[in-house]
Amino acid sequence: MSQDENIAWIAADWGTSNLRVYAMDEAGQVLADKRSTKGMGTLARDEFEQALLELVWPWLSQDRVMPVMACGMVGARQGWIEAPYSAVPCPPSSVDRMIRAPVRDSRLEVMILPGLSQADPPDVMRGEETQIAGYLAGDPGFEGTLCLPGTHTKWVGVRDGRVERFRTAMTGEMIDLLSNRSVLRHSAGTFGDWDDAAFRAALDEMLADPGSLLAQLFSIRASALLNSDRAAVSRSRLIGRMVGAELAAMRAFWQGLPVVVIGTVGLGAFTVDALRHLGVESRAVDTVQVTLAGLFAAYRAYQGDKR
Amino acid sequence: MSQDENIAWIAADWGTSNLRVYAMDEAGQVLADKRSTKGMGTLARDEFEQALLELVWPWLSQDRVMPVMACGMVGARQGWIEAPYSAVPCPPSSVDRMIRAPVRDSRLEVMILPGLSQADPPDVMRGEETQIAGYLAGDPGFEGTLCLPGTHTKWVGVRDGRVERFRTAMTGEMIDLLSNRSVLRHSAGTFGDWDDAAFRAALDEMLADPGSLLAQLFSIRASALLNSDRAAVSRSRLIGRMVGAELAAMRAFWQGLPVVVIGTVGLGAFTVDALRHLGVESRAVDTVQVTLAGLFAAYRAYQGDKR
Repeated sequence: MSQDENIAWIAADWGTSNLRVYAMDEAGQVLADKRSTKGMGTLARDEFEQALLELVWPWLSQDRVMPVMACGMVGARQGWIEAPYSAVPCPPSSVDRMIRAPVRDSRLEVMILPGLSQADPPDVMRGEETQIAGYLAGDPGFEGTLCLPGTHTKWVGVRDGRVERFRTAMTGEMIDLLSNRSVLRHSAGTFGDWDDAAFRAALDEMLADPGSLLAQLFSIRASALLNSDRAAVSRSRLIGRMVGAELAAMRAFWQGLPVVVIGTVGLGAFTVDALRHLGVESRAVDTVQVTLAGLFAAYRAYQGDKR
Repeated sequence: MSQDENIAWIAADWGTSNLRVYAMDEAGQVLADKRSTKGMGTLARDEFEQALLELVWPWLSQDRVMPVMACGMVGARQGWIEAPYSAVPCPPSSVDRMIRAPVRDSRLEVMILPGLSQADPPDVMRGEETQIAGYLAGDPGFEGTLCLPGTHTKWVGVRDGRVERFRTAMTGEMIDLLSNRSVLRHSAGTFGDWDDAAFRAALDEMLADPGSLLAQLFSIRASALLNSDRAAVSRSRLIGRMVGAELAAMRAFWQGLPVVVIGTVGLGAFTVDALRHLGVESRAVDTVQVTLAGLFAAYRAYQGDKR
């Protein structure tokens, strides 16, 4: 039996900058995966189907319809087709509210999962709700906070299988802008430069005086000029101040609550380290694993509807 | 008598992005001015003289040497020639520590004013020290705070004609990055969009909870999506949150102290408005005027040395 015959469905994690697709079997196991940089931000409405086909065509066959379960910015207003938000409090994955994308190729059936919105304070997510659903599929009784670090880090309060509230910090995007496009680029080093002591000192400074962020950034550059700091020190200070400022702003989500961090590298690892430094033991889980678990749950609901 | 004969010296305000030159008479009055985008950041070390000559050549004559008094990033390590920092506490303008730039054209004598540094917390300035000196030339007994809003806003404590301490906030640069390069660019409007009530509400939010900045930015985008906010509201909120976060971080510089803001438009005007909203009446002065007053004081010291 060829691999193709085992491919029961396709999982698609389709964000602003990237498209990742996975050929999946009936039991939710990955048979193959591919990716491209054809994220939502790069595509006009009528280019999504072609961007998907460029990756998945070897997984299709003439004699059957392949379900594609997709999450992320592909369902935004400027995406393939808008999948309107579900308003919290609600379960993370609204499989009953999936939207079917218009396709020309009859071998495809593309279902897009809606994101979540919150009225007050105003907030939105697209893609992370599927990761939350994937995590809860394996730990349905979880009560506490899920933290999803990234370009726009989400802090999510969960109870009884529902998202109660959430809040977004633009920490990843701001670190990226500050270290690549601001005056700090002259001293912020590059990926891999690291100094644990500088990171922790910066965390402590921000937690001790959470309102001081705007006064604490330029001093990274000034100190590099005056004290010839190593790039690793400057970079760890910048990340420590930003993660520290985020933790100060999100204290209500982590103080005295069980915390699970979705993401084991980069900002995910920094967040786990920072929480540990503050005496909070969090558990870290792999992002791809929970994304696929969430899309698998959606696939099973979709299959159930078909029967 | 032609204008040229009245030109006694040239004032040069030479920052990272721009070069502004002024033909000055012996009494410190402006006879002509020109500008280019040949800032320090665009020039190699051996290109500074040519960039200056391109603007000032009509003001030169064969039979005399023209003094050029320059301040700003032109004196940085990566500038024309390094003018080492003076360490605070000290007078703002170290006219006795000006550095002569190397020139090929014998009609030019270019003197560069040093910037200021502070050891703890680490901080530096180049250019603003000359504005401070210019302000103090007209108000020598001033005791209080000078605020110089800009890409990197400086808050400066002054007493007995000396700079006692200062602190930099990257407010201007961060507003620029967030409104042009982050996800907020989709809703942050453009120059001129304004809503006073949104600005003030955002200020109040930040002052009431100074540590919340990283949680308060993405909600500008989310609210625009969910509530179809006008661009003027989103933009005023962004500026209000950033200026509010800056004022929270710089409270020790403005609470209960006389404040003079150097800058009457853009971020300068927003800062005056914000201070007034917090019950602090500041006085605003024109940036060019104090820059030229500071360079004029340097010119007079230079002339004194010549005699």
